[in-house]
Amino acid sequence: MKCHLTSRAERAQLAMMLEVCAYPKPGNVDRCHDYPDTWLEHFLASTILARPALEEAERGEGRIGEIIRHAVQQTSCHTGGNTHFGAFILLIPLVYGGDIKGAMQVIAKTDVSDAVAFYRAFALTAVRTYPTDAIDINDPKALDTLRDKEMTLLDVMHHSAKNDMVAREWVTGFPLTRHGADLLATFGPGRDAIVRMFVTLLAMEPDTFIIKKQGREVADEVIRKARNVLDGTYTVERFDAECIEKGINPGSIADITIAAIYVALSEGWSWES
Amino acid sequence: MKCHLTSRAERAQLAMMLEVCAYPKPGNVDRCHDYPDTWLEHFLASTILARPALEEAERGEGRIGEIIRHAVQQTSCHTGGNTHFGAFILLIPLVYGGDIKGAMQVIAKTDVSDAVAFYRAFALTAVRTYPTDAIDINDPKALDTLRDKEMTLLDVMHHSAKNDMVAREWVTGFPLTRHGADLLATFGPGRDAIVRMFVTLLAMEPDTFIIKKQGREVADEVIRKARNVLDGTYTVERFDAECIEKGINPGSIADITIAAIYVALSEGWSWES
Repeated sequence: MKCHLTSRAERAQLAMMLEVCAYPKPGNVDRCHDYPDTWLEHFLASTILARPALEEAERGEGRIGEIIRHAVQQTSCHTGGNTHFGAFILLIPLVYGGDIKGAMQVIAKTDVSDAVAFYRAFALTAVRTYPTDAIDINDPKALDTLRDKEMTLLDVMHHSAKNDMVAREWVTGFPLTRHGADLLATFGPGRDAIVRMFVTLLAMEPDTFIIKKQGREVADEVIRKARNVLDGTYTVERFDAECIEKGINPGSIADITIAAIYVALSEGWSWES
Repeated sequence: MKCHLTSRAERAQLAMMLEVCAYPKPGNVDRCHDYPDTWLEHFLASTILARPALEEAERGEGRIGEIIRHAVQQTSCHTGGNTHFGAFILLIPLVYGGDIKGAMQVIAKTDVSDAVAFYRAFALTAVRTYPTDAIDINDPKALDTLRDKEMTLLDVMHHSAKNDMVAREWVTGFPLTRHGADLLATFGPGRDAIVRMFVTLLAMEPDTFIIKKQGREVADEVIRKARNVLDGTYTVERFDAECIEKGINPGSIADITIAAIYVALSEGWSWES
């Protein structure tokens, strides 16, 4: 973009838009590939409809958990299922705090009310078991348990971090988000850098969404294939086709990719060549 | 969408998003086709960035000409050139007035200040000669001429209607917009209805953007080809490939398609199957 006058909320929306359009993005919805029930248009509708929650975060009013719940509410009126729950978990504190440092300060201030709102947001989605198994979202007593234990939303993320890399970003200072943004800066301007960054992240750590859905072995195989793309012994197109054929969907790294694009845009990286 | 709780501004954004994603849309940018310098992402960035102007229109504050200028300003910070000028000319009064009837009332109230703001918006874009040749936008005296003649924005559109089908929508009560929305209702829910509606509009009247760029003969040939698609003697894929090869871009009917999707969404049509 020539102008860097976009607001934080707009940058978050542009990041969501750029991520879903980036092509070919192995296994995920992109401009040339839909899932049967979740299309490019569903992701883009969410991108548009999340604006009020993102603006709420930008104003720095209200609490993070509640704003995440609003974002999920605003974007759940289509039939495409959950599209951006993980992305909102990262974007809302980033937009609220402005950058990673600010997000960490915001996260440190979460309390039990944020945890309760988060579980309510979670109940609105059909996300594969997200937080700690100890607190089952389908259990009506879950909210009581949160309150009894006085768990903050950060506590919930600590519980979930072992099995969820989005939660891990919260408790470890957004390392993959930071690295993804640095990769974009290194690769230089242009939308093609997004796919290259995405594949590089895939080559680093197993995607926890894949682990939950298909197990560790499949996740490790994705790492190997991503490394083969990086060393030039495999093409990203073949990798994409294979993921689609096997129903492999690196959803958590897609969420982190959105957060990384947001940070990179904030730091002056341009998606235009 | 399951929910019809979207705001007018959001419906306008969804219409812009759905139009550009619809595929295959002969000659225009779609999810599988960019122009060299104008990409899917530029259209979607405009869709996101136009929100404040669309909200201004929804609040019914301020003047139409000025809001069109704001929309153009907000969406001109990328390098993809003008993406939605014609669409804003239709959407801003529709969002301001709520529907076609309301838009006509809004349009009837435009004055010379709207005309001046419109020409200022026009000067921000690289649009192929839009309004009447009598008032050359490159002439610094153009604004004086508007003021001397006390031309309203509706007057400007009357001057332009002969050579511009978007202007013609203003002065004739949005007939193609109305027909496009009716076609969507007839075709039923689902995004595929958008391409069918677009091709049907192409088969009706010559696209004035094509006439300005490539002449009447090319525009008439597009009508014939669109009719062949409708009668099944030509495929939409071949039609698309031919338009792309020849650089034929039915941009004005794309603008009207956006307005028609907005009206259809307002009347309950759903893009989800």
